Amino acid sequence: MKISELDNVKSQGTSMDRINVLPDEGVSRFDGMDILSVKQFKHRDLDIIFDVARDMREMVDRQGAVDILKGKLLSNLFYEPSTRTSSSFAAATQRLGGNVIQINNVTFSSVSKGEELRDTIRSMGSYSDAIVLRHPDEGSADIAAEVSEKPIINAGDGIGEHPTQALLDIFTIVEELGTIDGLTVTMLGDLKYGRTVHSLAKLLALYDVKLNFVAPDLLKAPTALVDSLIESGVGPCKHVDLDSIISETDVLYVTRVQQERFVDQSVYEKVNRSYAVNVDTMDIAKERMIVMHPLPRVDEISRAVDKDPRAAYFRQMEYGMYVRMALLALVFGKV
Amino acid sequence: MKISELDNVKSQGTSMDRINVLPDEGVSRFDGMDILSVKQFKHRDLDIIFDVARDMREMVDRQGAVDILKGKLLSNLFYEPSTRTSSSFAAATQRLGGNVIQINNVTFSSVSKGEELRDTIRSMGSYSDAIVLRHPDEGSADIAAEVSEKPIINAGDGIGEHPTQALLDIFTIVEELGTIDGLTVTMLGDLKYGRTVHSLAKLLALYDVKLNFVAPDLLKAPTALVDSLIESGVGPCKHVDLDSIISETDVLYVTRVQQERFVDQSVYEKVNRSYAVNVDTMDIAKERMIVMHPLPRVDEISRAVDKDPRAAYFRQMEYGMYVRMALLALVFGKV
Amino acid sequence: MKISELDNVKSQGTSMDRINVLPDEGVSRFDGMDILSVKQFKHRDLDIIFDVARDMREMVDRQGAVDILKGKLLSNLFYEPSTRTSSSFAAATQRLGGNVIQINNVTFSSVSKGEELRDTIRSMGSYSDAIVLRHPDEGSADIAAEVSEKPIINAGDGIGEHPTQALLDIFTIVEELGTIDGLTVTMLGDLKYGRTVHSLAKLLALYDVKLNFVAPDLLKAPTALVDSLIESGVGPCKHVDLDSIISETDVLYVTRVQQERFVDQSVYEKVNRSYAVNVDTMDIAKERMIVMHPLPRVDEISRAVDKDPRAAYFRQMEYGMYVRMALLALVFGKV
Repeated sequence: MKISELDNVKSQGTSMDRINVLPDEGVSRFDGMDILSVKQFKHRDLDIIFDVARDMREMVDRQGAVDILKGKLLSNLFYEPSTRTSSSFAAATQRLGGNVIQINNVTFSSVSKGEELRDTIRSMGSYSDAIVLRHPDEGSADIAAEVSEKPIINAGDGIGEHPTQALLDIFTIVEELGTIDGLTVTMLGDLKYGRTVHSLAKLLALYDVKLNFVAPDLLKAPTALVDSLIESGVGPCKHVDLDSIISETDVLYVTRVQQERFVDQSVYEKVNRSYAVNVDTMDIAKERMIVMHPLPRVDEISRAVDKDPRAAYFRQMEYGMYVRMALLALVFGKV
Repeated sequence: MKISELDNVKSQGTSMDRINVLPDEGVSRFDGMDILSVKQFKHRDLDIIFDVARDMREMVDRQGAVDILKGKLLSNLFYEPSTRTSSSFAAATQRLGGNVIQINNVTFSSVSKGEELRDTIRSMGSYSDAIVLRHPDEGSADIAAEVSEKPIINAGDGIGEHPTQALLDIFTIVEELGTIDGLTVTMLGDLKYGRTVHSLAKLLALYDVKLNFVAPDLLKAPTALVDSLIESGVGPCKHVDLDSIISETDVLYVTRVQQERFVDQSVYEKVNRSYAVNVDTMDIAKERMIVMHPLPRVDEISRAVDKDPRAAYFRQMEYGMYVRMALLALVFGKV
Repeated sequence: MKISELDNVKSQGTSMDRINVLPDEGVSRFDGMDILSVKQFKHRDLDIIFDVARDMREMVDRQGAVDILKGKLLSNLFYEPSTRTSSSFAAATQRLGGNVIQINNVTFSSVSKGEELRDTIRSMGSYSDAIVLRHPDEGSADIAAEVSEKPIINAGDGIGEHPTQALLDIFTIVEELGTIDGLTVTMLGDLKYGRTVHSLAKLLALYDVKLNFVAPDLLKAPTALVDSLIESGVGPCKHVDLDSIISETDVLYVTRVQQERFVDQSVYEKVNRSYAVNVDTMDIAKERMIVMHPLPRVDEISRAVDKDPRAAYFRQMEYGMYVRMALLALVFGKV
């Protein structure tokens, strides 16, 4: 099943195109759905997910866990390590009363990787009721969804998509600042290779935001992305200096600059220093704004900033668990 | 405790030989039993296991999980990786309401391996109520059972045994074709080193089957195995060409030919090509037959065959979970 | 929060010093507490922990598990492998009805280790309700506790502390011999680098014991430790020969001598042989005494000793699970 089949309602075993009627159905639209790309979601879908995520937060505060996924088994299939994402899904599933099969190292045979993935997905699908997949190769989640009889949740496929990260990013903004419409969002760091910012930018295009990019020349956002964002009606959307934009910024979204991208290490050092967020940056930032980061960080954000109440990156992780709980509950048809 | 003590009923703490009376006791025979070898099982035992496995399948279809192993803790102790087998036991335990301690990498000290295994088994036995063991060395499961106060389930010990695989293979045949008696089973691939086919062949000897072997010269079934099978009364039991037997075959059991077995890689390539099952093979096969494979596969079975309803290898994995659920329920005395 | 703030009652969000009133509060003192060092515990605390551990043992015997940690999620965060300790905490949590997120390999970025740990702890704290930490660097547990909003349980930090091991060692002695006061405890092996014996010795100082050390010259207990023990009023506390003390010893605590400590391997071989506990040692030992070992062992204790009822090292592991269950129940305020 492909991304384009937005209503792939696997649990109901139907493949007829119900895309036109789906918006009216609300939560039932998610039942059995693969979560592969941010492109699947409309504004109204996000409202539904965030409403459920808010309920989840309240529930966790009150009682820690519920039993709505009792009897459900989730495969947490990680072809590359990611402590945070993997733990977040494991926590989300268990707080909903479901169980997890954690797979950190798939036993490879000397088979072409795509074929191995297909067989592994079908194998895990015979044991479990849904599969969370993290894979180094772009397009892997789509391949998995094609062969799987159980819902696939893309937890990052190489330079491709990481839709649950983008959803939790939006949820963080809404919860922290009360709204997204009207905000100025500034993205800082590696805007060329970072799938996180690409996915987030696409989702932000569903809202009325001004988008600014701050990146070293080597790591500027791809022209194709910028063009498509402008077409979507997102505000100015241009590359600027951090100094010129920080005092207007409501959301400063920082990403890691990977040392491996630079042939000349002195260039890397210089970039790293000049794009770091520190106490001085926060001094000229608005009083009511937030700094976000998908983590892990190296030194893009100085540790001294952690104590600033505007530093939202650890709260962002917690919001992530609630969003993933919401998605799981929706995909399993338990809302 | 040794394999030969078929009635090692650990939970009752007795070692007296009750082999003659056990068949009359039905399910209670399994209570606290180690599952070490296919040699432990008689025809009537398989009937019991498969009856319970059928109940498990129905239960999973209906409600996903039950609570009969609530309060039970299983150690899933894997000295070598096996995503499928490990996940299958984890799923089986959790669908029965039990919990799993997953151990993928035992911390080795510079001790002789047998001694380390003994200590680890006794350690895990102090925490958990049963131990699933996968180990690269033949005989490891027997060593574990000797020192363990808790039931040991052999999940593969080197070129030794893999009894739960053989049980799930038989269950697959029964469920897919309704019976085993009277069938023609053809085993294809590496019949020399593959423990899977050896264990399966021994269990098939409990039934009235015709057994055929198809293998390259280097990987023919050992004479000792063939002789003991003929002695057991299994049908013709000889090496043949696939072409000559495929149209009479009810069960085509394919195994992987490991590249490492061949010094001359051109021989490997040739073998691999000439023994592959593809759409042409399926064209001359019976209409009502199944193709099985313990997985993972490389290219012994062409991907085009996956769509054929006679391709049973993914369903085989699912049957595996039900058989393991049945064994766990029986060993814990919960049937 | 530092070790010295013995009453760091995180769950109540207070930092005022209540150390003087706490002893009267009994179990409530443990609610939300970090378990970082043996120095936190007074005699009365041990009594409480052991009372609860005894209840846990009875409960496990009777029904395997309870639901008192239902809805609670524990992160089992292991920066270095330790099958036994990790499994013990996983078993303890699950037998109390809680769930576990197991993390064996933290994804490192090229960040300074201390900073990475801080971020990981805060991340795991957003998903889970408590964190068990094993880390190769001394002081790591303190760093974790400083930044964590959730209780930290130190499961070994390099050559630092391993408080739950020391607690289970004491519990083993009490359960096996009925008391600690009046006993002669002899520690054998690596008394220089072994954090296990250092932590245990400090806890023993809360009781009226005679402490003897038996170690090769290279691995003698540090003078600072010996001095502080003598100051605490622990009995003779001197280095002796095993032969001269074995017949008076009530508890023989054996530890592993690590080959890596010796430049000259012939010295290692000689030390290893002369300090090994074997059947001859047991022949001259008291009839009512126990041999303990934190495991894993190499050949400090001959396998032939395993059958001796005085060999308590496997029972010691089981006591460990009950002590960890008790600590978890207390830290979560569920006693």
